[in-house]
Amino acid sequence: MPSSPSSARVAALRAELKKRKLTGLIIPRQDEFQGEYVAAYAERLRWLTGFAGSWGTAILTLTKGAIFVDGRYTIQVRQQVDDKTFVPNHLAEEPPAQWIAKTLKKGDVLGVDPWLLTAADADRYAAACAGVGAKLVSVTHNPIDAIWKDQPARPMAEIAAQPTQFAGRSAKEKLEDVSADLTKLKADAVVLALPDSVAWVFNLRGFDVPYTPVVLAYAILHRKRKAELFINSAKLPEDVTAQLKALVTIRKPSDIEASLKKLGTAKKTVAIDVNTAPSRVRDVLKKAGAKIVNATDPCIMPKARKNRTEQQGARAAQLRDGAAMARFLRWIEETAPQGGVTEMSAAERLAEFRKETGVLMDLSFSSIAGAGPNAAIPHYHVTEESSRPLERNQIFLIDSGGQYQDGTTDITRTTIIGQPTDDMKDRFTRVLKGMIDLSRIRFPKGTCGSQLDVLARGALWTAGLDFDHGTGHGVGSYLSVHEGPARINKSDRTPLEPGMILSNEPGFYRQGEYGIRIENLLLVTEPEEIEGGERRMMGFETLTLCPIERRLIEVSLLAPEELVWLNAYHARVLKEVGALLDSDDLLWLEKMCAPL
Amino acid sequence: MPSSPSSARVAALRAELKKRKLTGLIIPRQDEFQGEYVAAYAERLRWLTGFAGSWGTAILTLTKGAIFVDGRYTIQVRQQVDDKTFVPNHLAEEPPAQWIAKTLKKGDVLGVDPWLLTAADADRYAAACAGVGAKLVSVTHNPIDAIWKDQPARPMAEIAAQPTQFAGRSAKEKLEDVSADLTKLKADAVVLALPDSVAWVFNLRGFDVPYTPVVLAYAILHRKRKAELFINSAKLPEDVTAQLKALVTIRKPSDIEASLKKLGTAKKTVAIDVNTAPSRVRDVLKKAGAKIVNATDPCIMPKARKNRTEQQGARAAQLRDGAAMARFLRWIEETAPQGGVTEMSAAERLAEFRKETGVLMDLSFSSIAGAGPNAAIPHYHVTEESSRPLERNQIFLIDSGGQYQDGTTDITRTTIIGQPTDDMKDRFTRVLKGMIDLSRIRFPKGTCGSQLDVLARGALWTAGLDFDHGTGHGVGSYLSVHEGPARINKSDRTPLEPGMILSNEPGFYRQGEYGIRIENLLLVTEPEEIEGGERRMMGFETLTLCPIERRLIEVSLLAPEELVWLNAYHARVLKEVGALLDSDDLLWLEKMCAPL
Repeated sequence: MPSSPSSARVAALRAELKKRKLTGLIIPRQDEFQGEYVAAYAERLRWLTGFAGSWGTAILTLTKGAIFVDGRYTIQVRQQVDDKTFVPNHLAEEPPAQWIAKTLKKGDVLGVDPWLLTAADADRYAAACAGVGAKLVSVTHNPIDAIWKDQPARPMAEIAAQPTQFAGRSAKEKLEDVSADLTKLKADAVVLALPDSVAWVFNLRGFDVPYTPVVLAYAILHRKRKAELFINSAKLPEDVTAQLKALVTIRKPSDIEASLKKLGTAKKTVAIDVNTAPSRVRDVLKKAGAKIVNATDPCIMPKARKNRTEQQGARAAQLRDGAAMARFLRWIEETAPQGGVTEMSAAERLAEFRKETGVLMDLSFSSIAGAGPNAAIPHYHVTEESSRPLERNQIFLIDSGGQYQDGTTDITRTTIIGQPTDDMKDRFTRVLKGMIDLSRIRFPKGTCGSQLDVLARGALWTAGLDFDHGTGHGVGSYLSVHEGPARINKSDRTPLEPGMILSNEPGFYRQGEYGIRIENLLLVTEPEEIEGGERRMMGFETLTLCPIERRLIEVSLLAPEELVWLNAYHARVLKEVGALLDSDDLLWLEKMCAPL
Repeated sequence: MPSSPSSARVAALRAELKKRKLTGLIIPRQDEFQGEYVAAYAERLRWLTGFAGSWGTAILTLTKGAIFVDGRYTIQVRQQVDDKTFVPNHLAEEPPAQWIAKTLKKGDVLGVDPWLLTAADADRYAAACAGVGAKLVSVTHNPIDAIWKDQPARPMAEIAAQPTQFAGRSAKEKLEDVSADLTKLKADAVVLALPDSVAWVFNLRGFDVPYTPVVLAYAILHRKRKAELFINSAKLPEDVTAQLKALVTIRKPSDIEASLKKLGTAKKTVAIDVNTAPSRVRDVLKKAGAKIVNATDPCIMPKARKNRTEQQGARAAQLRDGAAMARFLRWIEETAPQGGVTEMSAAERLAEFRKETGVLMDLSFSSIAGAGPNAAIPHYHVTEESSRPLERNQIFLIDSGGQYQDGTTDITRTTIIGQPTDDMKDRFTRVLKGMIDLSRIRFPKGTCGSQLDVLARGALWTAGLDFDHGTGHGVGSYLSVHEGPARINKSDRTPLEPGMILSNEPGFYRQGEYGIRIENLLLVTEPEEIEGGERRMMGFETLTLCPIERRLIEVSLLAPEELVWLNAYHARVLKEVGALLDSDDLLWLEKMCAPL
């Protein structure tokens, strides 16, 4: 059991709940922007329970408590949380709604901060409460904030403009597009609640949370008048304010309720996305008399479909990042066998190679650097305590990325210190076959990720193997490294569209021994004619350029066309990345990219 | 314009509508059992419009008319229907609901026979009417029946028992399983409206419609008492009645409303499947006070998951049918080049080979026998008028099947009279690669058809080609050749389960020139361990046994593992089918099955 200050905090919270006549409180991990990374002031779940994962929800009642996490965190939650106070539950096996149905009674009042959950989530909790005669109520001041004496201040990092040279389109053009969408929707306005949508539409980037240069702010875009952006104006440097002036009215964050009420009073039709907008936004609009239209955030699709400038930027970013990765892989190959390299020092050395590009803005996420058995944990993040040395005849997996002003990168390479076993080679090659087969496919308009996912898994399935994560996620353009809406996995039904950037990262994990993952980023191409064909087909352009560990490849397992792909890929890596490397690194790259 | 008696009938129907104070009437193709094949008395759409396709809907108002068909019938509808009276519409481009919104006005009253559409469909039509202030009303006596003077009588074919020797489980056991399902659903009874569910659960087979030995009857299954079957008792031979007696109360078809009312009066909870139950069933239950639970027809899943006896039967049926097909293919190869064989005579000759097995009950559908350009029509059905001769250097495609008491077959082979072009061989081989790649895949529990579909299409997509139909459909056990719920196509999300039988039939169609399709039936196998693997994987056992035209294969296009599969398949065909053939046929088969 961890020695956290949890019990005193739990007692204080229960006292606060009693004072407010609440039976319980829902404590989501997310902040008011539903993000994966939240600022320190918003780490309420961690403060209360000790749980440090990126996703989870706790419910505390006057007498009981539970915490709900997904498959990534079932082990971690037991290490970090007092499981007598917060009984750990797997989200899929015992969802919060089911726990509520079992635990609450008629007349119970469950509180929730309506800024910290989406309208759709609020509906689900409300239904679960109603099912047992209990009630879900919105609290007006967050009960944890009320008792958290040394709660950190809200971050105040300065916002930067993302120049059109990288964004490809001006904020003015983007706002005009949204206005046209609103005309189609017959709506007067739309509330933007996703911080990457706000960043994208205004061509701004923020630095309040690590890795993800989103802008933690809400906005209201109007069909016929200037947009409103709710942000502390002290965060905006003069040049940014000047640039925004013609398009945007800057208001205080707390002014959003007044603006929403005004829309309601004027009987306006307002679009919100119930899957991203806080429950409070809908409540205020509804109460004030607005007509609400539920519609997907209008920025999601154009943000996902990178324009030509963003595509060009992505190519440049991956090339530069691939060169840093290549220098790192050479360093690992030469240094690790002598001992003394740890997961931690390796991740730090890689960050230095990236910084040496001179244009790195940040990493795009906390590096996953796993040696031996740690490589078998797909979402492992190295810490001082967990860091293992890179040992002989063990696999080393590194999944990392950089934020550059022209693009976001995300790459995984798996290498071997010393000699691999036959088993490692077999598994690595099956993962590689999947990575290649997905990279090579052509497909018609309308095809979605769940139709293509089998290509990345077939070679594993046939051997009685699989991996328990998605094959690919969308990637932003100097924005979130996990960006919606399209994914490549067993169930996603969002059609892939030209300009989308997705990861292609099949893996294999042998618990307690080793893990393998190979990840390239792919750009969805326009439908193109194929010689001798009848229908235009889309396809993938591979963006990531970095050699794949040849010592782990069992060439005889590759189909002829897979080998052709691999050799062509390595030839391209040598040509393009080679142009950025100096003589020693280049000699190494030549060796790594020689035809197999 | 076709010279149909349509105009007089349309005038009579409009007079009937006026008399009933209706503005219009919906005329679906389906009968009260929502089936693909309907008896002559139920061909109301055809009688009124001339349209003979297997799916379509007309709407006739006092001044306007429209007919809605899917992509299979856009050409046929213009050949058969007076398009001034019934404007043809593609279902996807102008759905009936949209047409209603454009055409009807406030106060209009649109009639529909509530037995001829499902509850879910009725909801959709009602919403479309409500949207323009019109009303959907249920008519009590079908208006077409009222004016159709020489409407055929309802068919009276005798019902036969399907012995447990073929069914594998007794009706008693099946009814007990349904009763257990009702306990889980907290329902007192379920209404069965699908004629193949009725046939399956009582182990009965009927002969009222061609090709599909379903029982055109409704049933109510009770959790705690005897089932009710609503059928004309004259259809039941004495032995069948005797067998049913202990399990079932036989009532007249017209008695169902009384039984439904009784459930309502007793405040019972009744399960119906709104996607299959007639709107009228729900109306009567609701009005009488029953509590309605919407649930999938409880027979659908166990019917789809063939038991061991049914699986054994399916193997025997495909083997026997494959031998008939092999004899036919030899006959085509030897006879067609001499001239005089037509699509029609070929289909008839094949039916004779099937009859010569001595146990053929019926064909499983009207054969698709297409020569040259006719092969390019995926759902082509040969008629006296359309029948083409089999000509030299042309492709001949035959998609056909038989109903045997132990199983239903469905097989497509594509052959060449004379010499193929390189283009034909390239396309045929790509289709074959898809058929093989789907046959070979192993997959974990929970995998659905839309995840595997790409395997059948990848080799075509990569060449800029595709086909515009699903890759596979479920097949019944001496029941419907198209059976739900699982499919292999671009969108189906039903998980595949052990015991399901599905077709695997990729194709390629060059309009006006030729068409290719290769179809085998597959049985989904239990999850099995794979040597060296970690997870049990399901897979497919190929049921269909018949050689694939080697003269159309471009061997160099096959991957090594595809060629291994093909040679092993042909070796198995030779061994198993060969055992059923006499010397001349066997010599031919040896030639066709030699390794490539």
